[in-house]
This record gives sequence, structure tokens and C-alpha cells, in this order.
Amino acid sequence: MKTVRLGLLGCGTVGGGVVRLIRENASVLATRVGAPLEIAKVLVRDPNKERVPGLERDRITTDAAAVLGDPSIDVVVEVLGGVDPAKGYVEQAIDTGRSVVTANKMLLAVHGPELVERAEKAGVDLAFEASVGGGIPVIRTLREALTSDAVTRLCGIVNGTSNYILTRMRQDGLPFVTALKEAQDKGYAEADPGLDVDGHDAAHKLVVLAMLAFGARVPHETVYTEGIRDIEPIDHEFAARFGYTVKHLAIGQMRETNGKKSVELRVHPALLPTHTTLANVNGVLNAILLEGRALGPCLLSGRGAGDLPTAVSVVADVVDVAGARLSGAGGRMTRSVRLAETHLAPIDDAECAYYLRFQVFDRPGVLAHIAGALAEENVSILEMVQRGGGDARGEPVQVVMMTHVAREGALRRALAAAAKGGDYIAKPTHVLRVAPVG
Amino acid sequence: MKTVRLGLLGCGTVGGGVVRLIRENASVLATRVGAPLEIAKVLVRDPNKERVPGLERDRITTDAAAVLGDPSIDVVVEVLGGVDPAKGYVEQAIDTGRSVVTANKMLLAVHGPELVERAEKAGVDLAFEASVGGGIPVIRTLREALTSDAVTRLCGIVNGTSNYILTRMRQDGLPFVTALKEAQDKGYAEADPGLDVDGHDAAHKLVVLAMLAFGARVPHETVYTEGIRDIEPIDHEFAARFGYTVKHLAIGQMRETNGKKSVELRVHPALLPTHTTLANVNGVLNAILLEGRALGPCLLSGRGAGDLPTAVSVVADVVDVAGARLSGAGGRMTRSVRLAETHLAPIDDAECAYYLRFQVFDRPGVLAHIAGALAEENVSILEMVQRGGGDARGEPVQVVMMTHVAREGALRRALAAAAKGGDYIAKPTHVLRVAPVG
Ligand SMILES: NC(=O)c1ccc[n+]([C@@H]2O[C@H](COP(=O)([O-])OP(=O)(O)OC[C@H]3O[C@@H](n4cnc5c(N)ncnc54)[C@H](OP(=O)(O)O)[C@@H]3O)[C@@H](O)[C@H]2O)c1
Ligand SMILES: NC(=O)c1ccc[n+]([C@@H]2O[C@H](COP(=O)([O-])OP(=O)(O)OC[C@H]3O[C@@H](n4cnc5c(N)ncnc54)[C@H](OP(=O)(O)O)[C@@H]3O)[C@@H](O)[C@H]2O)c1
Repeated sequence: MKTVRLGLLGCGTVGGGVVRLIRENASVLATRVGAPLEIAKVLVRDPNKERVPGLERDRITTDAAAVLGDPSIDVVVEVLGGVDPAKGYVEQAIDTGRSVVTANKMLLAVHGPELVERAEKAGVDLAFEASVGGGIPVIRTLREALTSDAVTRLCGIVNGTSNYILTRMRQDGLPFVTALKEAQDKGYAEADPGLDVDGHDAAHKLVVLAMLAFGARVPHETVYTEGIRDIEPIDHEFAARFGYTVKHLAIGQMRETNGKKSVELRVHPALLPTHTTLANVNGVLNAILLEGRALGPCLLSGRGAGDLPTAVSVVADVVDVAGARLSGAGGRMTRSVRLAETHLAPIDDAECAYYLRFQVFDRPGVLAHIAGALAEENVSILEMVQRGGGDARGEPVQVVMMTHVAREGALRRALAAAAKGGDYIAKPTHVLRVAPVG
Repeated sequence: MKTVRLGLLGCGTVGGGVVRLIRENASVLATRVGAPLEIAKVLVRDPNKERVPGLERDRITTDAAAVLGDPSIDVVVEVLGGVDPAKGYVEQAIDTGRSVVTANKMLLAVHGPELVERAEKAGVDLAFEASVGGGIPVIRTLREALTSDAVTRLCGIVNGTSNYILTRMRQDGLPFVTALKEAQDKGYAEADPGLDVDGHDAAHKLVVLAMLAFGARVPHETVYTEGIRDIEPIDHEFAARFGYTVKHLAIGQMRETNGKKSVELRVHPALLPTHTTLANVNGVLNAILLEGRALGPCLLSGRGAGDLPTAVSVVADVVDVAGARLSGAGGRMTRSVRLAETHLAPIDDAECAYYLRFQVFDRPGVLAHIAGALAEENVSILEMVQRGGGDARGEPVQVVMMTHVAREGALRRALAAAAKGGDYIAKPTHVLRVAPVG
């Protein structure tokens, strides 16, 4: 019986998990694929590092050509991370007719569409379940379960670090920096947490999801991106008072204005009604809510990272592409991605309800001033609550307003106007959007 | 180019949706399958009924042999419902080498393992995503995403009617009969609601899930099954007071006692901590929580019924089996089900924490009596709350106790003892289990 020979690029957290799962489940996987899987070559940087138990030394190499140049290798599994040299390796694997499985969200966010097209041309598969939501089968759901449906909206908690920090802030009133420190101590956040807490990692994943859900080719740096550094414990308190929970979300939706289609992609903290499923996805867990025209809402939730959860997804992809290859059906997975030129809607065109936390001096006329500035731009107020005031020392007062749905552009103009006149506003206003899902 | 010819058995709610989706998405589906899908024949009972728009009259037949006996048909889609004649038709399709897609949970609950084995022997696929959780890709997740993992537990809200009724009872304090009537008026519940509210439909689905998750061959009538008829609004109130929400759950878990493996399957109302995702799946929505050894928890939620959500799942299955067939890989899906002789753990061996609502006469010694009966069986009390009392008319008092984890058998003996002695207990005690998931 023929074996399917795998070339592993990288053997760190995820790669180690992949080796373990493939070894431990060898016979089941062979049944499923139609032939045994063999880990033929493993590329690493440091040949002397201790590796996952049972991995034979002679499989390990530091020479990429030993993997990519070996014609007996059928499937390449890229778990290096980063854009370079991963991109070149993946291209070479595709160009030499291998199917590729990757967990690399950054690579896909930057070069996804061109790699998909390259794979399509070469008639090979490019699978990337593990790139978004770790162990959550969201890519598979978009790719397979929804073939006969059209996704109209998606909304996800896709960064576990940010979700952990927000959860801890809300549950115990911790300030951001303390919660971040805790996340770092627990190994959930990197020493340089920017990619996570500033929203870039979530933006990468949103771009990957949007490619599958909407066929969107959108440069990740054009996605409107906000992180969670500015959230304060008081925002969690006020949100709870209005019946909401603050989560960091990646949101994508198809829009049609005057017959012109566009896609709206944005990453920012947002308010979700407290009793929704998404609002109750806590800690490092991830979740993605898909809305299909036929299917309606569909929520998938689970661990977004970790060696084994992620490896479960990588191995599921390996089984798919290896099986397809054996039966001569390679490339079909890639052909099902339907890329289209995409107009990205500017954030000023977005429409939602807002949470506005003004920090004002407690002087006569302050509310009239703010309400006037909002009214001028047709932003109407739904509810209002004030905290503090009557303070002799002149400490700023917190005034929180929930608005009806408004245009982002109008809101920004209103806030700019409020900030200018009258010297009422003590500190910059905190703006949170209400999520478009219930 | 060859087409893949489909024979549809049934064209009601789900069948109509299947026809619509296949027609509306013809070109995408053809890309995905590798050949166009053609709805060649459609079996119904009443040839004159109005059918889904665009379905040609000449495809419709009332003669099963015209579908099953047509050698040009590649894939049979069974959306008739019920065991007979569906079973015979599916067997005939398998025996004549066709792959089969079915949405029929009842058929699978009764004859699943033998149909899987029959399909395996014939080298064809048997797909049934729509049989559990309508549009939720749970079967696909068990079958594909988790190939390299082992499911240790599953816990699901799999009956939309029951979930709707419980949600309405909790949200508006409605009694069961009023909420049921509302569900019937909205078309969520059948005129004969027994299959739904007595838990049998959930038991059917649990048996299907357990077959995939644990390889279990378990007769559905041996699954411990309780419905929701006995839940009263006061149970929702007390549950909330202790921080729980009442849901109707299907629970399956692998157990190992003294090296002997068994599977525990049970269907009953249960208490879930209010802030868990599962507890916040409301209305007619379904959800299934899977726990994989490597993956950890994974929750899938969405519409459990309805023409289009269900049809999305049926069509995804059609694409899989049609594609596999074209590339000569038919039967692989079936081979991946690993059936095993299964020992079903008796319910008396189950262990969980309990909610006990006693209805007692407010007399000295009543609490000592109950506490004594529980202590005798080592069931220890965690919290207690009483409502009513000091009532001159002698109305029963509600005493609710939350226990620590105990054996079901011990609990039953304790309750029997409490009911006997002293004449304290006015009405039967309400017992709810606390779900094993957090
Ligand atoms: N960790 C997660 O939970 C998770 C979840 C989802 C997706 N992902 C994605 O999975 C990928 C891998 O992540 P990871 O956490 O496994 O990373 P990691 O632990 O840092 O492992 C990276 C591996 O690649 C090797 N490597 C890196 N650069 C190399 C080079 N230039 N030449 C040869 N070998 C090189 C390293 O070799 P040495 O061992 O010799 O240093 C190491 O074995 C990334 O794209 C990441 O975004 C990770
Ligand atoms: N409805 C849902 O939301 C849902 C969700 C998940 C799974 N399912 C499952 O899907 C299956 C179909 O459900 P459904 O709601 O679509 O049922 P349905 O609306 O009652 O449709 C049944 C169809 O089968 C035909 N049929 C029934 N018995 C027949 C017989 N002996 N000979 C020929 N034709 C026969 C009927 O023909 P006529 O039209 O001529 O009467 C009708 O077209 C069931 O197994 C159900 O459990 C349904």
C-alpha cells in the first residue's frame, strides 16, 4: 500500500502536536485517508533541540531543500509562522505540485488570495483550518457546510489573549495592565503583546475568514482595527448596567447600497447583549458567529490556540488533502474559493448604535452642549446615565450615553464638535460600538 | 461532462428546500462536486400537490421503483421520514451501489449501525448531517474535524421545541401547558408533541451522535429519557436563585471503571450555570458541546430545524458523497465510523449533583427527617432554601436543596426513604440533575 509522505516545516508548539497526533492515531488516520501517513522530513532551525518524543532524529533537517526538493514528499505542512521564509517555501511546494496545509494566519492575511490562485493553477490544495480559531472547525464550515448558502455576516471573538484580558477585567474589576500582566504570566500573551491587544492578529484572521465567506481580497492593513488598551474597568461596569458585555470582535458583513456591493470589515471592542451566547464566551476561548442566508445564525466556539487543539485542525486538513490526492481529486478544495474584486466600505459608512463615555466638567449647560452636538448630526440618544458630580475639587464627571443606530461619520463629526466648544470636555470621549448581532 | 443524478425520496419541508438550494446554487455546486448535480426523480405520495417552484412535473413519481430501479441514479436522498418504508428504500439504494444522504434521525436511531455496516459492505457512503441539529455541522465535525481526537463527552440541546418551551417558561413565568400551546400555535410543536417534550426525539439524536462520537451501538429505547412536562415555573425561579438555568439536555460520556469501558447516555432536564454559553442558547436554537481529549471543549450552535437550514446540511452531504463518487473514493466516509460493542452504564451508576424540590408539610422535624434520609445514603447538602411556611391552611412548603455530587442510585434510595417515614412529604419530590459541564 502506498504511504502519503509528509514534509513538516517547523516543529514547535503546533508542529510537535501534529507529530504526536499523527503517531497516536496512525491506524484511524490510515483508514480515513486510504493510506498510512508518514512524517518523512521535519525542518527546524536548531537541530539539537529536544523534540517531541518518538520523532526519529534522522527525519530532522535544517535544510529546507531537503524537504522541498524531495520528490517523494506529497504534502507539505507549514507550521513555521511568519511571512518569510514561509511564503517562499509554500510557493515552492505548490509549484512542485504538492498540496499544502498551513496554520499561518499572518501569511494568509498578507498573501492569501495569491497563494490560493497559485494553488488553483497548480491543481493542488491549500488548506488552513488552524489559521483561524485554532481547534474550531470554522474554515471547514465555511468551505463545506455552507456550499449551498451565502454568508451575509460574521462576527467573531478570534483573539484569545484579548478575550482573556477583557474577561478578567469584567469579572474582577482589574485594570487593563494588571489583566495583561496576568495573561503574560499564564503564557497566554507574548512579551510583546501588540499583535494581540492592538487587534492586528484579529484583523489577520478576519481577512482570512472574509476571503472564504465573501470571496474578499482585502489587504489586512486596510481593515479598520482598534484594540483593547483604552478599555477601563468603568466601561465594563457601565456596559453591564445597560445590559451589555464588552468583547473584542472581528466583524464582517456584505453590504449592498444602490445595487453596489461592498464588504464591511472591522475589528474593535464592542457591546454584546449580556444574554447572548457570544457574550458568554469567556477566558481564552474563541467563537465565530456566521449568518447564512439559508442557514441563519451558526455559532462555533472552542479553544483558539494551544498545541493539541491547533494540531487537531492541522491533522484534519492533512487527512482531507491527502485523501483527495490519493483519489486524484486534489485541487477541488482550492477551486471552491471564489475570489472577487472587493470594494471595502469605509468605516465612516458603517452604521451602528454607540456607547459614549464623556468625561466632563460638572458645569451648567454641559449636557445641553453634548446633546446639541449629537442632535446637529442626527445622532439620537436612547439612554443616559451619569456618575459623580457635585464634586468640589472639580474632578471630571462620567456621563454615558447609549445612542440609536447612527452613521459612524456623523458620530465622529458630532464628537469633534462637542470636544471643541465651551470647554466642557475634560478628557477624550470613549466610544464603543454596539455589535450588529443579538 | 458527466452529471451526478440524484433521486429524491420525499419532497416536503426538507425536500423542497433541497430542490431550491440545488437549483439556486447550481454552478457553485458543480465546481465543488466536479460535475453538475441533476435532480432526476422525486418520489412523493400525492402527485397533484403543489411543489417547490421550478420543479418539473415529469420528475415527480409516486412509484418508488421508478427511482430506486433507475440505474442512472447515482445518489439517493431520503427525506421521507419515519422508519417504514424509508428503511427498505435506503437498503435497496445501498444494495444497488448508490450512496445515500438522509435526514432521518428516527431511522438512524433505530437502524443506524446496521445501515452503516451495510453501506460499508457495499462500498458506498451513508451521510446524515441533517439528522441531528438541522443546519449545525456537528456530524461533519465529529466525522472529519475530530479524526485525530477522541470525544470524551458531549452535551446538547437538540430539541428546539423543548428549548423554546423552557425558554418561554423561564423568561415569562409561563406554565408548561401555556408555553406548549404557544409553541404549537407558532408551528414549532406538532399536534402530538410527545416525541419532542417527552425527550424521545432527543434520545434518537443522542444515539446518532453516540454512534459517531463513541462508536456506540445502543438501542435508543434503552437510553435513560426524561422530558420536560414536570418542570414548573417555580423550578426556573429556584434554579436562577442558585445561579442556574434549566435546559433539556442530551448527555453522552465515556466512562472507565476498573478498566472496563462503558458509555453513559441520558436525556433529561438539567441545570446549567447561568453564565455558560450552553445556558444562553435560547428559543428554538440547538447547540452541541463536544469535548475532545486533544481539542478540549467545542460548542456548535444554530437552527436545529426548518426547511432551508436543514437543506443546507443535506446539500453539503450531497456534495461530499457525489464528489467522492466521481473520484472513486466512495465509501470512505462510512469506513470512518468505528462501531464497537458498547456497554451502556445503568443510570443508577451516574454521578452528578442534584437539585431537589421537596414539597413538605411545615411541621417540626421535617428538615431533620429529609436531611437524615439523605445522610444515610451519603448524599450531602450544599445549599438549601425554603419558600412558604407558617401557613395556617397547611399548604405544602417548598424546600429546595442542592446536593454535592452523588450516585443516582444512592439518591433514589434516599428519596424513597424520605417519602416513606413520618408523613412529612406532601407531593412527589422534583429532581433535576446538574449538568456535568461548566
Ligand atoms: N501556537 C498556537 O497555539 C497557534 C494557534 C494557531 C495557529 N498557530 C500558527 O502556527 C504556526 C506555528 O506556530 P507555533 O506556535 O508552533 O510556533 P513555534 O512554537 O515558534 O514553532 C516554530 C517552528 O518553526 C521552526 N522555524 C521557524 N523559523 C524557521 C526557519 N527560518 N527555518 C527553519 N525552521 C524554522 C522552529 O524551529 P526551532 O524549533 O528549531 O526553533 C520551530 O520548530 C504560526 O503560523 C502560528 O501563527 C499557532
Ligand atoms: N422539518 C425539519 O425541520 C427537519 C429537520 C431535521 C430533520 N428532518 C427530517 O427530515 C425528514 C423529512 O422531514 P420533512 O419535515 O421534510 O417531512 P414532510 O414535510 O412531512 O415531507 C415528507 C415527504 O415525504 C413524502 N412521503 C412520505 N411518505 C411517503 C411514502 N410512503 N411514499 C412516498 N412519499 C412519501 C411526502 O409526500 P407528499 O408531499 O406527497 O405528502 C413528503 O413529500 C424526516 O426524517 C425528518 O425527521 C426534518
